[in-house]
Amino acid sequence: MADKKANIGVIGMAVMGKNLALNIESRGFTVAVYNRSSAKTEQVMKDHSDKNLVPSYDIKEFVESIEAPRTILMMVKAGKATDAVINETLPLLSKGDTLIDGGNTNFHDTIARNEELAKSGINFIGMGVSGGELGALQGPSLMPGGQKEAYDRVAPILDKIAAKAEDGKPCVTYIGPNGAGHYVKMVHNGIEYGDEELIDEVFNILRNAAGYSVDQLAEIFADWNKGELNSYLIEITADILTRKDDLGEDKTKPIVDMILDRGANKGTGKWSSEDALDEGAPQSVITESVYARYVSMLKDERVAASKVLHGPSAAKPEFAGSDIVEDMRQALYFGKIMSYAQGFEQMRLASDSHDWDLNYGELAQIWREGCIIRAQFLDEITKAFEKTPDLNNLLMDPFFGDIANKYQDAARRVVSFATEVGIPVPSLAGAISYFDSYRAEVLPANLLQAQRDYFGAHTYERTDRPGNFHYPWYEEQ
Amino acid sequence: MADKKANIGVIGMAVMGKNLALNIESRGFTVAVYNRSSAKTEQVMKDHSDKNLVPSYDIKEFVESIEAPRTILMMVKAGKATDAVINETLPLLSKGDTLIDGGNTNFHDTIARNEELAKSGINFIGMGVSGGELGALQGPSLMPGGQKEAYDRVAPILDKIAAKAEDGKPCVTYIGPNGAGHYVKMVHNGIEYGDEELIDEVFNILRNAAGYSVDQLAEIFADWNKGELNSYLIEITADILTRKDDLGEDKTKPIVDMILDRGANKGTGKWSSEDALDEGAPQSVITESVYARYVSMLKDERVAASKVLHGPSAAKPEFAGSDIVEDMRQALYFGKIMSYAQGFEQMRLASDSHDWDLNYGELAQIWREGCIIRAQFLDEITKAFEKTPDLNNLLMDPFFGDIANKYQDAARRVVSFATEVGIPVPSLAGAISYFDSYRAEVLPANLLQAQRDYFGAHTYERTDRPGNFHYPWYEEQ
Repeated sequence: MADKKANIGVIGMAVMGKNLALNIESRGFTVAVYNRSSAKTEQVMKDHSDKNLVPSYDIKEFVESIEAPRTILMMVKAGKATDAVINETLPLLSKGDTLIDGGNTNFHDTIARNEELAKSGINFIGMGVSGGELGALQGPSLMPGGQKEAYDRVAPILDKIAAKAEDGKPCVTYIGPNGAGHYVKMVHNGIEYGDEELIDEVFNILRNAAGYSVDQLAEIFADWNKGELNSYLIEITADILTRKDDLGEDKTKPIVDMILDRGANKGTGKWSSEDALDEGAPQSVITESVYARYVSMLKDERVAASKVLHGPSAAKPEFAGSDIVEDMRQALYFGKIMSYAQGFEQMRLASDSHDWDLNYGELAQIWREGCIIRAQFLDEITKAFEKTPDLNNLLMDPFFGDIANKYQDAARRVVSFATEVGIPVPSLAGAISYFDSYRAEVLPANLLQAQRDYFGAHTYERTDRPGNFHYPWYEEQ
Repeated sequence: MADKKANIGVIGMAVMGKNLALNIESRGFTVAVYNRSSAKTEQVMKDHSDKNLVPSYDIKEFVESIEAPRTILMMVKAGKATDAVINETLPLLSKGDTLIDGGNTNFHDTIARNEELAKSGINFIGMGVSGGELGALQGPSLMPGGQKEAYDRVAPILDKIAAKAEDGKPCVTYIGPNGAGHYVKMVHNGIEYGDEELIDEVFNILRNAAGYSVDQLAEIFADWNKGELNSYLIEITADILTRKDDLGEDKTKPIVDMILDRGANKGTGKWSSEDALDEGAPQSVITESVYARYVSMLKDERVAASKVLHGPSAAKPEFAGSDIVEDMRQALYFGKIMSYAQGFEQMRLASDSHDWDLNYGELAQIWREGCIIRAQFLDEITKAFEKTPDLNNLLMDPFFGDIANKYQDAARRVVSFATEVGIPVPSLAGAISYFDSYRAEVLPANLLQAQRDYFGAHTYERTDRPGNFHYPWYEEQ
């Protein structure tokens, strides 16, 4: 092997790193592989002895086994492990080499590392990788950010390993400088949280207030997947609802009923909400979905509370619409549009703050395959931004504005019904409130500004003239 | 002056520092004063030449003018200015001296500074100061956190300068170690955001959907202030609504109508939401109030959106209740209870994370006077925690649980009505969803866990046995 250098190296032979290495190799590249503990590398070589993989058991040998300028993809745990790998590798690299961090890294860290490594002439790409283990092997959606010239050099590999959309386009593009790639992956994950919560809320109402069975709901979701809601998450929800218990005594029970209702999270949804708060971006649908997981985790408290806090005392109201299932479908789509409108507005604000010059249409494009939020309607987002690249908000695009206008009545009936029967709809209600706030020419923030000026002399602007004003609240009237 | 040392020193002669120095002096103490630029100190000495103030125009002289062990209160801008003052002062201090940071500092910074200064044997107290300029002069609510022995030494001064509650108790107590004081002040500010937004939402509905005039609303709020909603914010809202334009041509117009509806913020509400996200604390009411300010800031976008996004197409519904004003009052109180339940739950989680051992009843007690959220119902919070010091959630206290149970119907009618007429109620709707989530024995997070296991092999817990499980989603059925 000494005479043939690898085209790229992968550090980290846990499942994601291994699968990406195999994916790259399958496209005709030679891949150097390395893992801190040699056992993992040995196992990979044993399982895939026929592949063009060049193993090293020493970091120096590993680096030397890659053709210059080198490209090294790190697939290690975000945080300290990433720093350890960088520190170990850096002295062995040459100017012009490129390190790619494909981990679930916070974009603030990526910005810092990109800046730090640039001092040594090393390119640093932070790359969001979506699609899980299977995506890594067969074709993920990739969100790389960093030096453009480094991206251009590695693009031929990324184009080949990425998922392909229906039109054949690879689900990867240059996102922007420094932390832009990890940033966009973070917002992607937030959007994923929102999509899941919206589905779960609609499921909860239909099942527990409208009396549909799990079997019926499986059919309803399958049916929805044939229309404008067509997406991976609706598809798997339909499938999940057909599955029966695999372990219990009664194998006819839906598996969903055997699963404990404590919604875990790995933190990226939270990051996206924290960033929205930092950017001044109203992001209620996603944030409420994060909080919904938090409340769900308090299972013991909830069980105790359910015994002392009762529901509405009024008789259960009739649903106000004529077709509750269709209303739910429209409410779900309405909520989804609000969530994406918020997510894209957040990315626009961040792009301005960080000088990233994000191309929003392309972002929607590379999410069409390989990732969890893949959905038919992403095409419409791409079209909206192609038509109006500086679109402030998706709701100002005629396609999305028209649907929002049309579906709002159903969404209102659903939220109103859930509120009256006592079923929580944090994200759906957040969606409606966002819509009603965003389309409000005047909000009661005038009273807020008066309050702030009253107790804190914070001043306010006026509707009829420029400037900042303070009212003489404490003078004799 | 060389023979009489000051009891305490104050650095920073902007309005907050000056007023606190005058407050301390007025209680019989001698106060050393210093400001980076001497002009401010000179002005203070000119305006208050009869007071026991010891001015210094050199930091060394200033430190030497204070009796040992020294107590120095910094009232400077949070961030770099605070670091600059600490770095300048530190070499002049002796072991056992105490620095107090009374600025609006992020508690993470306070934790770091407390730890760093402790290495030199210097005590560091981070103290939340609420009540604005007037409170600083006449009696603020104080939230000091840091070394207990340092607090004990300065307590006689703090007790005297703090606001006094009706029962004569000073609105100050030892909050806890390191950043606990600034932390609690941050949550206080978040709660303040929530209170303001809830008031503004109710104002908006009554005015714009129920047709009440500003004059009528002034009376309604004044009336509410006589009952269980009695609080500073309700009181000033009633007052604000009586005030007329001071600048425009038509002096009969309510001032609130002349104020631009862009709700500003200084970041502490945002911090409290970011911390809730970090702590795993569902904090929807406050977070929605932060987002409400953010949407309000997008005035130009909103005006443009108001022209293309229309409201509900259904005819305006009748309000479902018999007394809309009383229903609004109950909804407001219900929302407030949810907001405080969330805020106190957040503090409990943070207290556990940081080992602060917060005393929740005392926190409610020191907010009874001197600060923006002072309110009658804080007494009830104190009672609840006195009865059950390890209370998980305010809703589990009979007093608050009973009101929530009783007022939920009104709150539901209000949210449902607002949703149907198209008036945004992000915090009120967040309050209902929180209530309905918290009292839910089962949430649809079981479906969420199935989804996460399906696409990411994240595993789930089961309802019938311990352990983590993965379903064979991809095996042949």
